[in-house]
Formats: sequence, structure tokens, C-alpha cells
Amino acid sequence: MSDAVRERLAWVAVDWGSSHLRAWGLDERGEVLARAGSDKGMLALAPQEYEPALLEAIGDWLSASGRVAVWVCGMAGARQGWREAAYLPVPTRLDDLARGAVAPVLRDARLEVHLLPGLCQHDDAAGRDFDVMRGEETQLAGLVAHEPGFSGLVCLPGTHAKWAWLEAGTVMRFATALSGELYRLLASRSVLRHSVAEAGLDAPGCREAFVGAVREAAAEPGRFAQRLFGLRAADLLDDSLPAGEARRARLGARLSGLVIGLELAGMQCELPATPVTLVGSAALCERYALALETLGHASRRLDGDTAVLAGLGLARAGGDNSSWRRI
Amino acid sequence: MSDAVRERLAWVAVDWGSSHLRAWGLDERGEVLARAGSDKGMLALAPQEYEPALLEAIGDWLSASGRVAVWVCGMAGARQGWREAAYLPVPTRLDDLARGAVAPVLRDARLEVHLLPGLCQHDDAAGRDFDVMRGEETQLAGLVAHEPGFSGLVCLPGTHAKWAWLEAGTVMRFATALSGELYRLLASRSVLRHSVAEAGLDAPGCREAFVGAVREAAAEPGRFAQRLFGLRAADLLDDSLPAGEARRARLGARLSGLVIGLELAGMQCELPATPVTLVGSAALCERYALALETLGHASRRLDGDTAVLAGLGLARAGGDNSSWRRI
Repeated sequence: MSDAVRERLAWVAVDWGSSHLRAWGLDERGEVLARAGSDKGMLALAPQEYEPALLEAIGDWLSASGRVAVWVCGMAGARQGWREAAYLPVPTRLDDLARGAVAPVLRDARLEVHLLPGLCQHDDAAGRDFDVMRGEETQLAGLVAHEPGFSGLVCLPGTHAKWAWLEAGTVMRFATALSGELYRLLASRSVLRHSVAEAGLDAPGCREAFVGAVREAAAEPGRFAQRLFGLRAADLLDDSLPAGEARRARLGARLSGLVIGLELAGMQCELPATPVTLVGSAALCERYALALETLGHASRRLDGDTAVLAGLGLARAGGDNSSWRRI
Repeated sequence: MSDAVRERLAWVAVDWGSSHLRAWGLDERGEVLARAGSDKGMLALAPQEYEPALLEAIGDWLSASGRVAVWVCGMAGARQGWREAAYLPVPTRLDDLARGAVAPVLRDARLEVHLLPGLCQHDDAAGRDFDVMRGEETQLAGLVAHEPGFSGLVCLPGTHAKWAWLEAGTVMRFATALSGELYRLLASRSVLRHSVAEAGLDAPGCREAFVGAVREAAAEPGRFAQRLFGLRAADLLDDSLPAGEARRARLGARLSGLVIGLELAGMQCELPATPVTLVGSAALCERYALALETLGHASRRLDGDTAVLAGLGLARAGGDNSSWRRI
């Protein structure tokens, strides 16, 4: 980083997950000056190893004097992370996450670190179930930074897909589906690993296979475990499938559709008439959008990284998003 | 084996699966004279390694002269096994499996080996889906050996649980649910591995946890992926759970109930008024019996090993079970 850029650096945003850390250097207006990352995620680090891992990633951005604020979301704030930032119970205002932030003890005087909390939900008579999130709440805050007072249903697809019901910028309730992990285990560790490939939906027939599977799983979620084995049986017996990689791509698209269709089956009676807001990567959100569309529901998307940066920026600004550059 | 016992040996029954082989030496009346087994399953063997693996297990049972018939069911007859015994398409009479048996080429003149075929099902207008079984058909044949002309719904719980609709001793249709594999992957490879233990249902609260989970999954199968993550969240947040291993046993029972309940959700509208016949090990069949009972359905059990021996015996007798010892 050049001295000129280094002088513009106002703060650092970090998304520190289980397996990776990603950092952005930003100026006062929220413009990204630099990016860094490493595979030193929570699972690989003891508490005293976080500060060195952070310096390894962003040390070059710091000037000899002066102090830079680093706002961190994700698993670094878990009990088994750097220092625990206890879950905030829902309902929680998303412009107020910073009230649950904690500061780990640091050796380097140039750093000032804030670890944001996750959200938790206890079971109650209003139909809430036990649930937790850590990292996604900051993306939700980013949505609220972008659209103050947002109300609606938000879905954040991923390893543990989150669905959150927001009212006037507050998380009222949320639910987590283990879909991404379920898909990954089935595709890579089950007997289906011989039959499926993880591929896009662009190859011939894959989009149709995905859509058909979404429809079947949503209509008859109870037959999910049967339809899983049906993929293996189709691989052995179905002469109408193409051969080789095309076959594996087709069956992989079908597996993805079954898993996402099952997830949507559980949401169907709660889906609003207004579009679902999807927050995440383009590829995964596209799949969810297609699945929702298959079941007659509209959606729109906010980029996941954009949401993380906006959410961390909102926390840094103490919930005041007036100075935050519109996304 | 003593010479006296060796003289009584009439034939050998072998259940040769993906990961194990199990052999029984029987006399003419079907009495078990000896047992043997090894972990040389289909996945561990090349075609030319089957005969040595068999001799390693039962070589001691053979006399210097004379020839012994060995009837084999399971994956040894798969395409990637010893020699392929092609699937018989349903509907298939279970007293006629021997018509699909094949004999591998052997070096040892004392052996005469018959590999039984599996069953396959093509999708059709009558609502059948692609499906395969290899090994379970012999257990079904054992049920028919026991009760000639059997009609009813049979469930064989396991890694890939099979449900078969029999009419007058013929398999009309069958369905496979990936339940056992799903449970194993979730319990040992997913984030839930930190929260669950595989234990019996005898510990306090485990039976209730299992029954409650069966009921929930059967009532709302679409929420399966949510309830999975709910196990993790409950482990983190639910103060009403006991600590330590008791907690893990409780959550493990709940996971088992969710998976079996999901499977039953897919069967519910097809369950007959007559009892479901469960074929398999006592522990697993007990769980299925409890799950069925939870949903208001009766069941009865036939021991899995008993069924295999009776099925292989029926094939050996060419479908004539008049000389077969009643189970």
C-alpha cells in the first residue's frame, strides 16, 4: 500500500469466519482501498493467535503512528474465538449491534478492535425456536444501512441458511436450515458422490433437473430421503440420462434442487406476498431465486460482501447511517 | 470344525455385503453348524480375490473330497463384485430368485458357488420410481419361506432402508430411503457431531426425545433441515437439557427420531391397516416399531439373519420350502 493510500485509510472491516478471514481497508466515505484475506479462520486459531493473524493480513496498511479501528463480525467473537461477544437475544435492532461489541486485549497500540455479537433466539410461546447466528446479523444490518427501517423476509443462503423476519429494521425472529451442509455431505460423502458433480445450471438439462427437483421436494418433503436414493438408482438405470460428466452434472443439479426444495417446503406457508430479499453470492442467490420463482415467489438480491461492509460501517457509525455511502 | 460336524455340513450360506462377509455352515435341516465372517467386503476386493477370501473364511469347513454348495446374496453379485448377477425387474416372485443366479469360475473343485441377483425397478405410469436392491431381496424371500404367499408391506431398516410391497409372495414395488446413511453423516460429519452421541433410548428422556422428534418430522417434514440446526442451537441455548453425555444422548435420540420421522412422513399415506413387517436387527427394528407406533401403526418383526438364511435356503431348494425348517 502506498503512503498516499495509507493516509486515506479510515478503518478496517473484517469478516472472520470459521475457516477464513477477509479484510477490507476503507476510507471515510466507505470506498474500498485494499483487500486481504487468509485461511486463518476461527477453527485454526487459539485466542492469542488472532492478533498476529490480523497483523499478517493488514499490517502493511498501518502507519507507524496513529491508531486504526478494526470492526469484526463472525466467529472471531464466538466463545471459542478471540474473545466472546455474547449473543444479543431477538428482537434486536440492527442499527444497535455495537452495544454488544467487545474489545480484545491487544499488544499492538496501532490497533483498536471491536468484535460484534451474534444473535440468539430462545423458544417461546410465539412460535420461536432455539436458534443462533453469528456473522449474518451484520449482513442484515447492512441491508438496514442500505434501506433504513426495512421490513420483510430476508434469506441468506449458505452452509447454514438463515431466514430472518425484519420489522422496521429489527430482527423479530429467524430460522436456520442446515441445507448447505446437507448438500455438501450428500454430494461428497454419501453413496451419491459416485453419481453427482457440483456444477452450474448452464449445462443442457440441468436447469430443468433443478427446477423439477425443487417442485417435487416442496410438494412432497416427506419423500426427501427416498428421492435421494432415487438419484443413485437413476444413475444405474435411467437410459434417458446423458453419459459421463453431463450425467453427473444433471444429477448434481437435481440433488441441489431437492435440498433447496426441502428448505423452501418448510418456509412455504410463511413466505410473504412481497419479494424475498436474498443476501449472498451471485451463484447461490441465483439458485434460490430460481427455486422461489418455481414456487411462485419473487425475490431480489443484495450482494453479500456489500452487505457485510455496510453492516460493519453502520456499527462503526454507532447506528447512524447518514454519512454512509448509499450502496 | 470336527470331522463329525464337517460330515453333517450340507451347504454354506453367505451374506456378502459392501464391507463385510458373513458365512454360516448348515446341515440338511437348516441348523447352523458354524459361523464365520471377515471384513473383506465388496469394496475391498477385486474379482479374483473373492475365492481366496471365501476359503479364508470357510476353508476349514470343507472336507478333502466332496463338493459343497455355497449360496451367496449381496454385493458380491454386483457389477463391481465377484461376477455380476443381473438385477431381476419387479414384479418378481421371491421363490424364484435362483433363476437369476450366476456361478463364478472357481479354482477349488470343492466349491460350487451361486450368486443371487438383486432386484431393480424402472419408473412407470403405475407410480414406480427407479430403484435397486441387492441383498434385501433374499431377506424378503426368507419371509416368504417362512410364510408362503405372504402379502403386506415390509420394511428393512438400514443404511438404505427398503420398503417393499408384497402380494402373494411377489414383490410388486419397492422404495428406498437413504435414512441410515443420512443419520450417520449428520451424527459423525456435520456440525451436529459436537452435540449428539449415538446411544440407545434407555437413558432418561431419550425415548421421549425420539418420539417427539418422530412426531414433529412426520407432521412437518419440510422443516427437517431447520430442525437439524435446531439440535445445535438447543445444545448451545437450552438450559432444560442435562449436561455432558446425557445431553448428547438426548440430542442423538432426537436426531434419530427426526430422520426416521422424515422417512415415515413419506410412507404415511401408503401404510396399510395391517401391521408392517420389520426385518432386521432388534435394536433398529425396535426404533422403527416405536416410530410406527407413535404414528398409530402396528408392526411385527422377523430377525434379519434368520431371514437371510431362510431366503438363501429357499433359493437352494429351488423355491420349494416344504423341506425347510420352520423359523
